[in-house]
Amino acid sequence: MSAGMSRKGLMFVISSPSGAGKTTIARELLDNEPKLEMSVSMTTRPQRAGEVEGRDYFFVDKATFDQTVQDGGLLEHATVFGNSYGTPVAPVDRALQDGKDVLFDVDWQGAQQMRARRVDDIVSVFILPPNAEELERRLTTRGRDPDEVVRQRMAKAADEMSRYDAYDYIVVNDDLDRCLGQVRAILHAERARRQRLVNLPAFVRGLSGPYAAEAS
Amino acid sequence: MSAGMSRKGLMFVISSPSGAGKTTIARELLDNEPKLEMSVSMTTRPQRAGEVEGRDYFFVDKATFDQTVQDGGLLEHATVFGNSYGTPVAPVDRALQDGKDVLFDVDWQGAQQMRARRVDDIVSVFILPPNAEELERRLTTRGRDPDEVVRQRMAKAADEMSRYDAYDYIVVNDDLDRCLGQVRAILHAERARRQRLVNLPAFVRGLSGPYAAEAS
Repeated sequence: MSAGMSRKGLMFVISSPSGAGKTTIARELLDNEPKLEMSVSMTTRPQRAGEVEGRDYFFVDKATFDQTVQDGGLLEHATVFGNSYGTPVAPVDRALQDGKDVLFDVDWQGAQQMRARRVDDIVSVFILPPNAEELERRLTTRGRDPDEVVRQRMAKAADEMSRYDAYDYIVVNDDLDRCLGQVRAILHAERARRQRLVNLPAFVRGLSGPYAAEAS
Repeated sequence: MSAGMSRKGLMFVISSPSGAGKTTIARELLDNEPKLEMSVSMTTRPQRAGEVEGRDYFFVDKATFDQTVQDGGLLEHATVFGNSYGTPVAPVDRALQDGKDVLFDVDWQGAQQMRARRVDDIVSVFILPPNAEELERRLTTRGRDPDEVVRQRMAKAADEMSRYDAYDYIVVNDDLDRCLGQVRAILHAERARRQRLVNLPAFVRGLSGPYAAEAS
């Protein structure tokens, strides 16, 4: 980006089935991209020891959450095991206006809700495990879960993978460095999209500057 | 790209006003991207010493050129100083089907003609000089041209720059390495676009594989 040019930030959505490595990729991205910040969700679930308000979550009661939904203050929201989770729009918009990009770790339903509201700002990436066997291995060795739990988790991963066609980009995580390189390339490329650029230098527009008189 | 996945190649169009560094960038790209090849133009202009048929150009007579245009065999064409130039479609399609990407060095009119025929396959990048002063310097110090020639060249550059809104991406060449990195990021990102992927592994589609029975 040259001094004369600036851009609007973008909303970078990364989704993946459980076990595809999304969390590692998100952490690496945030560590290495100073202009990228993580979206902080609002939730009604109780704050746990060690969790920091405004860093891990915005902790609110159910009435506040519902009011925020009613006011259109959430980009997406969902209820999981009786707790509500959502993405507040205000801090996201502040970051975008500052030319920062915001990272979202949401599932396909969250990605779909966000796209419906902000299609021009969203870039979505779906991370895939390299193959069925490797996914099974990652889901199985994660803990000492009963077979039934692993079976459910794999069925859920299969369902999530079938939603791949809701995403702009698809990256296979067969090698972490390669996968991360591709995700970073997507972020860097999307920053150069014409639609995101504002304040193109006057000499580019041909409206003023030393060439205007000569060209006309 | 994992073993189970393949993709259709893309048509990578790079344009810039004269003096923005496009030629250097194209050469660096071709040197470092084994899956990228340069499109070879067809022309009616006489072959010069050292030029190789099929590498520098396909040299044809005017009748052959016109027939190729009539047959729809050129993706774009133009006449410059009485000589015709065009981009044959057949070798491009062969490369794309092989999963290779093809690089095109055309002006905005060529890019526009190509987009009209192949909008889904084209990714276009416009390289800008960092500012008016630097562009003037590059155009002036290039040779020992008369003022009038420099003036015409700058007017042409101004006209070309005013067409920036026909391109998908805009990259400012204020630093060659940074600019080249951004152009490569665009190429790498676009390779991961969902629409370009073919043969997604069956387990992703959820149509077969070990999860199909469990998920249903």
